[in-house]
Amino acid sequence: MSDKISVGLFGFGCVGQGLYDVLNHSQVLEASIEKICVKDQNKERKIDMSNFTFNHEDILSRKDLNVVVELIDDANEGFKIVSRAMNNGVNVVSANKKMLAENFEQLYELQKKNKVALLYEGSAGGSIPIIRNLEEYYDNELLDHIEGILNGSSNYITTKMEVDNLSYEEALGLAQENGFAESDPWLDVAGFDSKYKLCLLTIHAFGIILKPDQILNLGIQNISFDDILYAKQKDARIKLVAKGYKSGDKIRVYVLPQFVKRGKPLYNIMYEYNAVEVEGAYSDRQTLAGKGAGSYPTGSAVLSDVSALTYGYKYGYKKLEKMIRNGNGNGHYDPSSMLDTNFELKVYVRYNDRSSLDDLEIVSIEEEYKSPHSNYIVANVKFNSLFNLYNKREKDLFVCVVPEE
Amino acid sequence: MSDKISVGLFGFGCVGQGLYDVLNHSQVLEASIEKICVKDQNKERKIDMSNFTFNHEDILSRKDLNVVVELIDDANEGFKIVSRAMNNGVNVVSANKKMLAENFEQLYELQKKNKVALLYEGSAGGSIPIIRNLEEYYDNELLDHIEGILNGSSNYITTKMEVDNLSYEEALGLAQENGFAESDPWLDVAGFDSKYKLCLLTIHAFGIILKPDQILNLGIQNISFDDILYAKQKDARIKLVAKGYKSGDKIRVYVLPQFVKRGKPLYNIMYEYNAVEVEGAYSDRQTLAGKGAGSYPTGSAVLSDVSALTYGYKYGYKKLEKMIRNGNGNGHYDPSSMLDTNFELKVYVRYNDRSSLDDLEIVSIEEEYKSPHSNYIVANVKFNSLFNLYNKREKDLFVCVVPEE
Repeated sequence: MSDKISVGLFGFGCVGQGLYDVLNHSQVLEASIEKICVKDQNKERKIDMSNFTFNHEDILSRKDLNVVVELIDDANEGFKIVSRAMNNGVNVVSANKKMLAENFEQLYELQKKNKVALLYEGSAGGSIPIIRNLEEYYDNELLDHIEGILNGSSNYITTKMEVDNLSYEEALGLAQENGFAESDPWLDVAGFDSKYKLCLLTIHAFGIILKPDQILNLGIQNISFDDILYAKQKDARIKLVAKGYKSGDKIRVYVLPQFVKRGKPLYNIMYEYNAVEVEGAYSDRQTLAGKGAGSYPTGSAVLSDVSALTYGYKYGYKKLEKMIRNGNGNGHYDPSSMLDTNFELKVYVRYNDRSSLDDLEIVSIEEEYKSPHSNYIVANVKFNSLFNLYNKREKDLFVCVVPEE
Repeated sequence: MSDKISVGLFGFGCVGQGLYDVLNHSQVLEASIEKICVKDQNKERKIDMSNFTFNHEDILSRKDLNVVVELIDDANEGFKIVSRAMNNGVNVVSANKKMLAENFEQLYELQKKNKVALLYEGSAGGSIPIIRNLEEYYDNELLDHIEGILNGSSNYITTKMEVDNLSYEEALGLAQENGFAESDPWLDVAGFDSKYKLCLLTIHAFGIILKPDQILNLGIQNISFDDILYAKQKDARIKLVAKGYKSGDKIRVYVLPQFVKRGKPLYNIMYEYNAVEVEGAYSDRQTLAGKGAGSYPTGSAVLSDVSALTYGYKYGYKKLEKMIRNGNGNGHYDPSSMLDTNFELKVYVRYNDRSSLDDLEIVSIEEEYKSPHSNYIVANVKFNSLFNLYNKREKDLFVCVVPEE
């Protein structure tokens, strides 16, 4: 591809506008946004209306655009746009984590079939260059462990609760006021957003494609101030953590709140910041931290992908290709069989009604507290049975991992 | 280059052996070390002697080796090897920071002239992928500020002094016992090692090539336990920090001990860990942290460079090329003129004999302490005049930056 990049952009929300501004201030990259496709015909826009169209075809049918950047919220619509563009032989940059996680196998095939690049650094970790580093820098590394704070809204909420002694509702309200949470924050606080991102990291870290619905996510939506106080007593903070790690030939993957002890790298990641810890057999432990969301940080990540296209960059998917080639020992690639959900995990569970725990397989209880006001147990439980708590999530039940020292 | 990589390796010390082990355990990369050139004919080696040679030509004259990896200590010898290899059209990976920093202009020309790659991720930040991220990920970004803890030995020493109440000599002894410091630790503790690394980061962050001797470095070699106590009173830790930041059209660059306040990202970087903070106009603040030295972490960084050669990766030097193209406004690239040394800096200076401060241009004194045991001032000084303290560095004079809040 020549150095001059002509972008067709889908979506002009927070990240789209960030990309627009960052690109226009780049002193190095020769690129321009030629057309922007948006949905809402009545919304007022900050730039001239001649930049916009409401018809996908005004971008997808143009032969003079060599990059499509897809920054919309809708996963189905996003997949249509991205797959159309790739089938047209156009390189694509996307930050649509749900779309990417849910359709990854097909998107991988489309990249190979059409020999085009699909880059998505802006989809996970905001401004932190985690995917590119997993892909390239740790490409030969036997990674053992990856964990991170991947959702800025949730981290902002738990931080505000702790630092300013706020209730969950107050902290959530502030997050919304400051633009760190959507008006419907469910995807953030219930851990779905983190899970989509973890799906993508799992592919690049371990070469394993999992579907989002295979991964457990329990969020912070039921956290109470009692939980924050309990954490403080233990010299820890509660963080919503997305984690994947090797256990023998398999991997364990989940999104759960976790007590993070003082002194651990994630302990000091506060407010809307994100961080990812990567641990390899040889490179030891690395931490990458930065703003996890926001118009300019994520816009910068997207622009960095656009820029990488100027020198023909594609993800190599070395680990995934090796996995597909070797299969699970029998030549057949079956990522589901590599997922270990049959293990014990130590968790803190706060509950109102003891019957909420009926579906939880408790192996042993280490600590138990009951009062008219609040109850909790610290127990080793069967990880599998945590999936049973999904339907309890609207109730007053909060689960938090107690990590081994 | 084909996927199969045949390496000729110079040096088999700590990093060289690390590379050897990490490469042999890589499940993905097809590469082999075909020959290792070492200096000491009498040293016992862990692997069979048939792997070794003592003659450069046994590597440099072989046509079947497509990568030269240079991991020796000697800068002059290193430059000869690296320039010979590049002139032979061979791609080179090096971790010889002194060699790279002192000869950068020539090495840059050699890359262009011979159309070969010279990669050196292992030369700065150990396992932290800082150069590659500056080069690629922040390639379009208007970076404002970069600072880091780049020397693991110095950080180990100041950490041990604080945590275990040790004297400088005791902490240094432990660092040497644990292999974190050379038997002659001068390059580490006096800030030269950090300075060479900072030279390389300055090129990739700002596009400005500076000579090591243009950059001020005062180290931790004269630190006393009194300084550690003073820092504790201020809720800070002393870290040897390498820093470069924009000030108008120019940049300010130096290596100095610094009081790092609790809550700042570098505060929790302890022992032999390194970290780099990068701040851009749009991507906001990012922190990358990890083991700064050691056989396997640095070996992994070197291997990652070797791996990058399989897909034809080269540093693009976009910022440097833009600087050279545009010059300093007049079409002439004169990096020295972009260096600002004419500014005021607030520093803590502990001294025995007041005459040691004679050459320091003090603008204003904010704090002053005198006792039979120890004396210090906290003062705004002319940065330029800190160069005058170089010849005082053997004496009992310790300088530490007091950052603005």
